[in-house]
Amino acid sequence: MSFTFDIASTAGAARAGVFSTPHGPVETPAFMPVGTLATVKALDPEDLVRMGASMILSNAYHLHLRPGDDIVREMGGLHRFMQWDRPILTDSGGFQVFSLERLRIIGEEGVEFQSHIDGSRRFFTPEIVMQIERNLGADVIMQFDHVIPGQSDQASARDASERSIRWLQRCLAEVQRLETTQPLEDTTQLPRGSPREMVAGDNPGNHQALFPIVQGGIHAHLRREAAESIRSMHDWSGFGVGGLSVGEEKDATYEMLEVVDDALPKTHPRYLMGVGFPDDLIEGIRRGMDLFDCVAPTRMGRNGAVFTRDGRLNIKRTEFRADPKPLDPECDCAACTRFSRAYLRHLFVSDEILGLRLLSLHNVHFLLSLARAARQSIEHGNLEQWSRDWLARYRATSPLAV
Amino acid sequence: MSFTFDIASTAGAARAGVFSTPHGPVETPAFMPVGTLATVKALDPEDLVRMGASMILSNAYHLHLRPGDDIVREMGGLHRFMQWDRPILTDSGGFQVFSLERLRIIGEEGVEFQSHIDGSRRFFTPEIVMQIERNLGADVIMQFDHVIPGQSDQASARDASERSIRWLQRCLAEVQRLETTQPLEDTTQLPRGSPREMVAGDNPGNHQALFPIVQGGIHAHLRREAAESIRSMHDWSGFGVGGLSVGEEKDATYEMLEVVDDALPKTHPRYLMGVGFPDDLIEGIRRGMDLFDCVAPTRMGRNGAVFTRDGRLNIKRTEFRADPKPLDPECDCAACTRFSRAYLRHLFVSDEILGLRLLSLHNVHFLLSLARAARQSIEHGNLEQWSRDWLARYRATSPLAV
Repeated sequence: MSFTFDIASTAGAARAGVFSTPHGPVETPAFMPVGTLATVKALDPEDLVRMGASMILSNAYHLHLRPGDDIVREMGGLHRFMQWDRPILTDSGGFQVFSLERLRIIGEEGVEFQSHIDGSRRFFTPEIVMQIERNLGADVIMQFDHVIPGQSDQASARDASERSIRWLQRCLAEVQRLETTQPLEDTTQLPRGSPREMVAGDNPGNHQALFPIVQGGIHAHLRREAAESIRSMHDWSGFGVGGLSVGEEKDATYEMLEVVDDALPKTHPRYLMGVGFPDDLIEGIRRGMDLFDCVAPTRMGRNGAVFTRDGRLNIKRTEFRADPKPLDPECDCAACTRFSRAYLRHLFVSDEILGLRLLSLHNVHFLLSLARAARQSIEHGNLEQWSRDWLARYRATSPLAV
Repeated sequence: MSFTFDIASTAGAARAGVFSTPHGPVETPAFMPVGTLATVKALDPEDLVRMGASMILSNAYHLHLRPGDDIVREMGGLHRFMQWDRPILTDSGGFQVFSLERLRIIGEEGVEFQSHIDGSRRFFTPEIVMQIERNLGADVIMQFDHVIPGQSDQASARDASERSIRWLQRCLAEVQRLETTQPLEDTTQLPRGSPREMVAGDNPGNHQALFPIVQGGIHAHLRREAAESIRSMHDWSGFGVGGLSVGEEKDATYEMLEVVDDALPKTHPRYLMGVGFPDDLIEGIRRGMDLFDCVAPTRMGRNGAVFTRDGRLNIKRTEFRADPKPLDPECDCAACTRFSRAYLRHLFVSDEILGLRLLSLHNVHFLLSLARAARQSIEHGNLEQWSRDWLARYRATSPLAV
């Protein structure tokens, strides 16, 4: 079995586990940095290794358009292309396709849309998306699903959820076909030398884990029905939970998480898609979620906004002009252990690229560390106390808040 | 003596030396990466250390305007501010002030100009510029000089050169005054921990080396006269050579370098200001120059242009779309040992910040390595052969040339 999930300890619904993949283990709960276009924005893979990132995310829709999943495959797959020898998860691009403003036609067969890059007409079906994700060669690949707005009514939510389940069946069939017809190269050991010297070998990592996505909006019975249909279809290696934190009330999110936690097997990892602000991460962990991702840490970093244990701050503010303190005095990232707020502010005010990198690095490090701290508190049996204290401090009104 | 220059071997006019400073040695010939605003654009100080950079450059004019040299001083000086514990040289900003398009009034006392940031009126005198460079606290500080266009006639060149020498006298007096009235903090050991914990200590590096600048345009006798006046004024630790590679014919540059090589003491380092394309670097080394700087490697890197041993290439070209080779197959930088041209092109086409960093890194590494290779060929006594071969290959028409 290429993919396993071992739970070391639990605390209520929360779990400290190890998700094993062909490219190594992921200690959960884990935050997965987002590398939409085969790069976690402004960071070097080495930065991520040093911060202890294990699994990162990339995106089938974006890589299909640029540089093209055929090019990535020709270059030896995504791991080699971006020089990341640890696990990768690719999102199917369902979210992107269904968010496109340009005309799209949705049918049972798939979705027709226009590229946001050049306006060219494209067609995504469950089969085509699985072919793209096969070309990319990530460890975990997400199903192609029908994504709807966060507060959709029950009828639309049911239609989309049921279609997603029919599409899941087609994704599964296509993945099984591709595993026999299109073997993956072994990218578990990236050569240290020149990329030219990379050669294909026998392949211990031919198997990709297809994750289904539990949809159903904010309707508990739809979530339960979706979970039930998905479970009965196949013995999955893990489950995605989609369509949350997309504008609905926090209470609705938490209720849905509790419903899903109950409806999915405790034995498998759950990936709460697109969720990853510090407080959402903790609330998700407390409700049995294991994997998280969010573009916020890098996006905020590029805008000068940073997480600290005392809330957020924006480095561009004048008050930091001559502040010798690090961003977060308790942080041990490569920005906080070396540079003052005064220097980082100077970099931002002067539009220097190093500023974008250092703040992105700090924010990603912050979330990776937060997930590790949560894991530790599960192991030590004090998750409830730890998370209450952590959230109280983070949410306290701070003079530095933005 | 805080500053010494030891020559290990020579080859014609060329020298392999070691320039010692309070923040450590500089093996010459050396290329100095340019960190105008207290950051070598797109690079981390750690990148520079790994590439073996020793001395880097920064700029008094730019840092005076942003963040302000008073802020840098308050933060413990430039070494601490930007976390660079090796040697730094600051240019005086003469070049910037005299290039400003906004109204400037030049008189014997100094230059009045408008900030390019906010249009505020500023006044630079030799004394003020020395105070700025004292606040920054670099190891080597350049004099404030009167810079003129490259092909100025003899009368203007003489006026500017003679004024620069009068200003040099004032710079020297001010530097000597500041050394006794404004001691520098010891920044030879940057603390590893939080910037907050940095404290002032006794200071082995209170002494800054003021470098005079030999001007005189493309007029040999003016260059000789300037060198003579400067030498007779003081026992300098090294000499700047200014106003070359600013639009004049290559032959005129080479002739001036030979004149200056002859007119300056062989025993001291010579810094050829603003020069640093690969071929110019080699031609300068062959004519007795020791230190070089140039913004081209980082600026080109941000535009997708890279140096290779077979000339320049632009990574954005379609032909690199699926090219698995590194930028330069013989390069051992952190870009070439990991990434394909296909990946780097993808980063550029997708406006990804990592692309700017990796190409800047490669170009800076290329020039640092080139200077090291030149040094080795001087030590091995084969500079002439080595430089002929190197230049022939670099200048040969390449299908990849840009």
